[in-house]
Amino acid sequence: MAERAPYDLVLRGGQVVTASGVVTADVAVRDGKIAALGADLPAGRVERSAKGRYVLPGGVDSHCHVEQMTAAGIMNADTWESATRAAAFGGTTTIIPFAAQHRGMDLAEVVQDYHLRADRGALVDYAFHMIITDPSPKTVQKDLPALIRSGHGSIKVFMTYDPLIVDDAGILKLLQVAKAEGAQVCVHAESHDMIHWATARLLAEGKTAPRHQAESHPRLAEYEAIGRLIALAELVRHPVMIFHVSTAEPLSLIRDARARGATLWAETCPHYLFLTDAVMDKPGTEGAKWMCSPPLRTEADQAALWQALRAGDLDLVSSDHAPFRYDASGKLAAGPGATFKQMANGMPGLGARMPLLFDAAMRGRLTLPQVAELGAEAPARIYNLQDKGRIAPGADADLVLWNPEARTVLSDDTVQDGTGYTPYPGRDLIGAVEAVYLRGQPVVNEDRLQVQPGHGRFLPRGGGDAAIWQEKAV
Amino acid sequence: MAERAPYDLVLRGGQVVTASGVVTADVAVRDGKIAALGADLPAGRVERSAKGRYVLPGGVDSHCHVEQMTAAGIMNADTWESATRAAAFGGTTTIIPFAAQHRGMDLAEVVQDYHLRADRGALVDYAFHMIITDPSPKTVQKDLPALIRSGHGSIKVFMTYDPLIVDDAGILKLLQVAKAEGAQVCVHAESHDMIHWATARLLAEGKTAPRHQAESHPRLAEYEAIGRLIALAELVRHPVMIFHVSTAEPLSLIRDARARGATLWAETCPHYLFLTDAVMDKPGTEGAKWMCSPPLRTEADQAALWQALRAGDLDLVSSDHAPFRYDASGKLAAGPGATFKQMANGMPGLGARMPLLFDAAMRGRLTLPQVAELGAEAPARIYNLQDKGRIAPGADADLVLWNPEARTVLSDDTVQDGTGYTPYPGRDLIGAVEAVYLRGQPVVNEDRLQVQPGHGRFLPRGGGDAAIWQEKAV
Amino acid sequence: MAERAPYDLVLRGGQVVTASGVVTADVAVRDGKIAALGADLPAGRVERSAKGRYVLPGGVDSHCHVEQMTAAGIMNADTWESATRAAAFGGTTTIIPFAAQHRGMDLAEVVQDYHLRADRGALVDYAFHMIITDPSPKTVQKDLPALIRSGHGSIKVFMTYDPLIVDDAGILKLLQVAKAEGAQVCVHAESHDMIHWATARLLAEGKTAPRHQAESHPRLAEYEAIGRLIALAELVRHPVMIFHVSTAEPLSLIRDARARGATLWAETCPHYLFLTDAVMDKPGTEGAKWMCSPPLRTEADQAALWQALRAGDLDLVSSDHAPFRYDASGKLAAGPGATFKQMANGMPGLGARMPLLFDAAMRGRLTLPQVAELGAEAPARIYNLQDKGRIAPGADADLVLWNPEARTVLSDDTVQDGTGYTPYPGRDLIGAVEAVYLRGQPVVNEDRLQVQPGHGRFLPRGGGDAAIWQEKAV
Amino acid sequence: MAERAPYDLVLRGGQVVTASGVVTADVAVRDGKIAALGADLPAGRVERSAKGRYVLPGGVDSHCHVEQMTAAGIMNADTWESATRAAAFGGTTTIIPFAAQHRGMDLAEVVQDYHLRADRGALVDYAFHMIITDPSPKTVQKDLPALIRSGHGSIKVFMTYDPLIVDDAGILKLLQVAKAEGAQVCVHAESHDMIHWATARLLAEGKTAPRHQAESHPRLAEYEAIGRLIALAELVRHPVMIFHVSTAEPLSLIRDARARGATLWAETCPHYLFLTDAVMDKPGTEGAKWMCSPPLRTEADQAALWQALRAGDLDLVSSDHAPFRYDASGKLAAGPGATFKQMANGMPGLGARMPLLFDAAMRGRLTLPQVAELGAEAPARIYNLQDKGRIAPGADADLVLWNPEARTVLSDDTVQDGTGYTPYPGRDLIGAVEAVYLRGQPVVNEDRLQVQPGHGRFLPRGGGDAAIWQEKAV
Repeated sequence: MAERAPYDLVLRGGQVVTASGVVTADVAVRDGKIAALGADLPAGRVERSAKGRYVLPGGVDSHCHVEQMTAAGIMNADTWESATRAAAFGGTTTIIPFAAQHRGMDLAEVVQDYHLRADRGALVDYAFHMIITDPSPKTVQKDLPALIRSGHGSIKVFMTYDPLIVDDAGILKLLQVAKAEGAQVCVHAESHDMIHWATARLLAEGKTAPRHQAESHPRLAEYEAIGRLIALAELVRHPVMIFHVSTAEPLSLIRDARARGATLWAETCPHYLFLTDAVMDKPGTEGAKWMCSPPLRTEADQAALWQALRAGDLDLVSSDHAPFRYDASGKLAAGPGATFKQMANGMPGLGARMPLLFDAAMRGRLTLPQVAELGAEAPARIYNLQDKGRIAPGADADLVLWNPEARTVLSDDTVQDGTGYTPYPGRDLIGAVEAVYLRGQPVVNEDRLQVQPGHGRFLPRGGGDAAIWQEKAV
Repeated sequence: MAERAPYDLVLRGGQVVTASGVVTADVAVRDGKIAALGADLPAGRVERSAKGRYVLPGGVDSHCHVEQMTAAGIMNADTWESATRAAAFGGTTTIIPFAAQHRGMDLAEVVQDYHLRADRGALVDYAFHMIITDPSPKTVQKDLPALIRSGHGSIKVFMTYDPLIVDDAGILKLLQVAKAEGAQVCVHAESHDMIHWATARLLAEGKTAPRHQAESHPRLAEYEAIGRLIALAELVRHPVMIFHVSTAEPLSLIRDARARGATLWAETCPHYLFLTDAVMDKPGTEGAKWMCSPPLRTEADQAALWQALRAGDLDLVSSDHAPFRYDASGKLAAGPGATFKQMANGMPGLGARMPLLFDAAMRGRLTLPQVAELGAEAPARIYNLQDKGRIAPGADADLVLWNPEARTVLSDDTVQDGTGYTPYPGRDLIGAVEAVYLRGQPVVNEDRLQVQPGHGRFLPRGGGDAAIWQEKAV
Repeated sequence: MAERAPYDLVLRGGQVVTASGVVTADVAVRDGKIAALGADLPAGRVERSAKGRYVLPGGVDSHCHVEQMTAAGIMNADTWESATRAAAFGGTTTIIPFAAQHRGMDLAEVVQDYHLRADRGALVDYAFHMIITDPSPKTVQKDLPALIRSGHGSIKVFMTYDPLIVDDAGILKLLQVAKAEGAQVCVHAESHDMIHWATARLLAEGKTAPRHQAESHPRLAEYEAIGRLIALAELVRHPVMIFHVSTAEPLSLIRDARARGATLWAETCPHYLFLTDAVMDKPGTEGAKWMCSPPLRTEADQAALWQALRAGDLDLVSSDHAPFRYDASGKLAAGPGATFKQMANGMPGLGARMPLLFDAAMRGRLTLPQVAELGAEAPARIYNLQDKGRIAPGADADLVLWNPEARTVLSDDTVQDGTGYTPYPGRDLIGAVEAVYLRGQPVVNEDRLQVQPGHGRFLPRGGGDAAIWQEKAV
Repeated sequence: MAERAPYDLVLRGGQVVTASGVVTADVAVRDGKIAALGADLPAGRVERSAKGRYVLPGGVDSHCHVEQMTAAGIMNADTWESATRAAAFGGTTTIIPFAAQHRGMDLAEVVQDYHLRADRGALVDYAFHMIITDPSPKTVQKDLPALIRSGHGSIKVFMTYDPLIVDDAGILKLLQVAKAEGAQVCVHAESHDMIHWATARLLAEGKTAPRHQAESHPRLAEYEAIGRLIALAELVRHPVMIFHVSTAEPLSLIRDARARGATLWAETCPHYLFLTDAVMDKPGTEGAKWMCSPPLRTEADQAALWQALRAGDLDLVSSDHAPFRYDASGKLAAGPGATFKQMANGMPGLGARMPLLFDAAMRGRLTLPQVAELGAEAPARIYNLQDKGRIAPGADADLVLWNPEARTVLSDDTVQDGTGYTPYPGRDLIGAVEAVYLRGQPVVNEDRLQVQPGHGRFLPRGGGDAAIWQEKAV
């Protein structure tokens, strides 16, 4: 019966981590897929000991920006190559960045353009969320259905950020199309008008330094918009993914909505878990490094977010990687004297996400199965990446060996992405990535990149379960 | 490297179901353990095709009564042999019944006695929850710690049922010991005084027929007791398992407690999911067949419980199998003219639990991974049965082949347990158990039992995670 | 000491009803004010027995439309005279209708125009809420502060109804001005985009009859908008009055907001308490008589609203009188074949409000002190009508004698307002208005009007307590 | 018509404060009753200017202990004379202390005994709550109904304090009798078993000083017991009064219960509003002065309780006056080396309650109408003291003149009750009592007592509204 060729690769005797638990097992790979898990599996052409190592699924980062530029024209610091290099070195083998329509752009052309760039540059596998900012009839009725059918199973909408903002009528329209076509809808939920109001007051009071940016996004702005978004989704009866929850209060909205039968998902990001707005209190403009949107919050919020991850109220952790250099090409593009309003929001995160989560498990804040779930299995399942995120027979052999005895010290010197800085300088993490396999091939080994740009592949997908409103008992 | 002997058994090409998903894979068994999962695994001494079948983990029924008699002296209808035969035929390979101390009994002797009976009779594997009704100093300070250390990692307490009841002081004492020794505490949470008050009023009004038993357990009695229990657990900072939630209202208590950081678990049972109290409205005493405690409830409760299973607010589904014949040896022991108060509560469920859940998946109420989680993986994980409930390398090869094309019609004629009746007569279920393996050996095949009494083994275990209060962020 | 002139009027021996209770007392009036309450008061120039009668404060209807036309150009059926005649006959002696700015209108001119009309026509006293639909700089920075300072202490905003709608940025701006100037902000809170979405679907499905209007305002539209409004108010830290709550769900938003320290008020209207949308299921267009916004709801909502009145979650009951004839001059202006979208929303209510509330007290749904509170005392207090709504020394002698032995049967024939129909045809109410005094003078007596148009006076007022955010403990 | 004799007393031109507002008015008294309110009332035999003074209703203290001794045999420091002297000097003219049955006592005899003492000693009017600790058949079926019918319309139950405790079955029984007879049920709601558990642990750890008493009553003990009590009341469908809420969390239980239609009341006490447990951190045993039950709590609780008073979630403020001297006759009766467990709980409060509330109004924490409501009108209404608590025609002329220009400095030297100490030494209050009238007669004037012991009268009363469950909409 085992007349097949031998395995291409066998990782021997590692501690294999899935959302269900940790087992000691060999992992055998053939044709880029996981062929078998078990003890004493037959030999592979390549054999590697994983003894004393944890074998986790390759990370899936379902929210990260690898656009060329912002709506305001500020250059992102990353190319596809630099962004995916950071991902790979950080144990992430699949990313879902955005194909970003700006006002007036043709969505079909935008997506085509992103494909061209990604096809040339990506080191790891990828899919796209389509950012819709201009829900014109052509976009909504023609381009969007065609693109969803061609494997672009999710869209993203901003409730804030002029000129990206889509109003409630637009969201209803997009939810309706997404429901008809079976696509997932992701949303940046903050009240634009509240942020605008608060920002105007701060600037009028001369509070222009980066540290005031956190105040310019009132926590009520997140609470209100998430409540509104859930109501819109309930009206159309189509699920939503709530991006980057940063405060404690919306968690009760999420719980209550689920209790009454709503289908929705929610995520948070490492910077909300590991940083507070206190870090922005730096001289001059240096606080700008930590400006992001929604902004950093308080210790009480951190505690609530960790608890929500453990309790299942939040479903996954993404990076919201948004890379700008801390120089005139990025954060400081508006020159000296600029206010926080004129500085780009966002911080790098593709590389640090999985190491931070692994460290959290080593320190007992999460379990390792929770890390596998939050960092890989859940995003793959929710976004319908059917072969990704799991260590199971038939799945893509995206595997990361973690050495729990080693340490990873985050610093500006070792950053792999294009920003040149880390938001966590000096943080000493337990554990280190030892090797990264994508579809059975080494991508990173012994701290060296093993593949060329263009190695990554596009992952077409429908909306999957994420696009189905779970009705009450049949 | 694969110098080891060939596999003992390989199930080929089935749809393997775990909590993480469904994959097509061979399952190879050696020495009673799952040796490997994968495609095209080497041959086994025994080969069996699982094509077109779902391979689920053997069910784990973590709440069922196989005691000899009730506190009131009424005989249970089951021997260990009959109870575990029903389990096996229903796709359940592990049970956690009770070793039940009654007032005045010596706990150590009770447990020893149960071991003797189980050792002789069990067809499937088993552990015990120790029912404590007499938290005397000897029980609490001497017997209990010793028994926990010898592998009896959980205790059960009744908040109602004179003379089983343990008062709040007793629960605090037991939670304290459980915390010190690392044991899990399970609780039947209903307000004794409320039930007593409501019962007295019904009897005084001449409402003595079985159908009034449902009214005699006010839904407030469950709500109040669960609220109280959670507070007791929070005071001691030790988790609890809330047995058999039957109504909608306590779900918000569970959600709120988790939101503020409490560690707890909760279950429901098939009869609350598939029946309502309307079924008790039968002539004469026939309604007694459906008397259980807590009682059957309403359609709105059903809908809430299904939703809670899908949302993760409830962790598992157990049978609460409590077997009494519908004759003078059981339900009708008090003779003609008896009131509902004089009839034993409980209904059989060991055999029907997994078939009902599988059917629910076929009809879209749950997913198959949810069935694996709720019926096997979660109870094994929560009760620290480390080798049970999962289909993963190294786990016990407890495997059930389900044929989704066949049907199972429940009827009194086909019941395997000692009660002689089913609570679901005529119910036509999608799917049927085709074969059941325990530690790699067939227990049921082609509707025939394959093993002898005594085949089942005791599973010593500590409290595991279930005994640890998850503190907030470290 | 009592050298003063004798009283002008003494009502003898009535059951005087205030929010604090019911006492048997004479009420003495001098110079239009209540001079004394007590037993055996000295004689007045006019003496009237109130034995066997309840003496309630004159009703204060703080939400009613006496505009000339709607934004859509449809004529209101009432003049100031007809509207205030209906009020007077229904036991209401003070009204707060609107001075309604439409897009492009100059607010100062609008208010002046309304004063002219009211001055000539009013039979009872009045103040104005200023409807702002165009928060231009001149309106917001110049006219509004000046008008507030001249005694127009409240503004109203629509979150729905194109072209009346004010967006969230506009509401924040108006809250800010209201806070600075000490004015009260009242809001029609429904999500415009949700209503628009639902309406479009109904019309597309050919559901154009009036009874579908209720579906066109999803209950989620009210829930969402009230949640949003509360968040906006909390951001600015200035109170709001939530107009016409029609559904059950927002009540929890109101309770939660108050629990965390927010200052806000909320009202409902008689049609939500006494009618359901079932009444709209009439042949042809007759359902249009009951079209209002928010629309009529369900029996469960009714029960929740009554409970909220008793529990204090809702503060007052206003009529939202919005008068259109059921003919081509009003509801049917768009001609045959019109859809519900083309018919004016609103129903008459100035006359029926207090009789319905009095009847509710007679039937035990409310207490009489609650009727005094909800119908007179609370609206006067909340809107800072310092001399109105109370039966207390020094207050205006606005007094209504109610005969609890008589009946009032509502019918189209006896309607006093300009619409010519009642929403409650045939309803037989316990109790009847016997006499109505405004500032000590009879306005209605023995079913005859006693005064001429122009008798009513404008009541200048600041925002009062309603304009102050109650901070937490000092 | 005004042929009646002139008034006995007229207070001229004061600011008369009721729950509805503040008006300038004369208050005329005849035959002990308020005869009239108004401007320029006819002359009285006695005339007194109240210009520049606030005239409040005499305080009603509905929860205070004037028993002879505790269950533990420790002597209360007060006689009826000393307790009611403190009340009178503090502006309180009606008290509802307890007639306290201890285990084994005959309830009818207990009440008779209390009547004898009160009849001889009381300086102000009074009613009784009957403390039931022994719900024997004679007590419940015979004595209690007879006593309720003779004007003792309320009972009190302890859920903690061995041997006073009544278990849930007892509470259900008493609620049932109270419902049948129309009586009000008041409850000290703390979990006895939780307090017992926490106390044992503290003592075992050597934490025996008074300051640890606060820890010995876990806040969960109050939360749990209030939740349980509400459920018991909902089962019987009879209201309860929740005594002395001390923590924030139960407020949500109260709000939720009311939202679902439950009728209940709740109070707090000045020491929870003005003190925290930090005050107990004194050398030696001095902290014992502030030991009370439930114990003093945190600043966050204070803020929540103030907010709850303003929002109407708490209905009234009582003193829970429980007087023990800080010497061997009282707090220190167990001698040197005693633990907190051996010291009597309770602190004096009859005299300070109204001055503290008046001061709160002067400082803006409450309004004066709220003080009238919380301190007099609400307790009189809730406990059915029909002629008390209100300044309205026909009510008892219980009137207190407050001078807002004067100050009251609390100190051990000026205490009027028998304890000899104040819990608020040195606190400087805005406002002072200038004169106190009971049924029109001066009780205190110019800091001198004007009446003799025995002046107070018993106030027979039924349960009133307090005994009626408000059903949902009729």
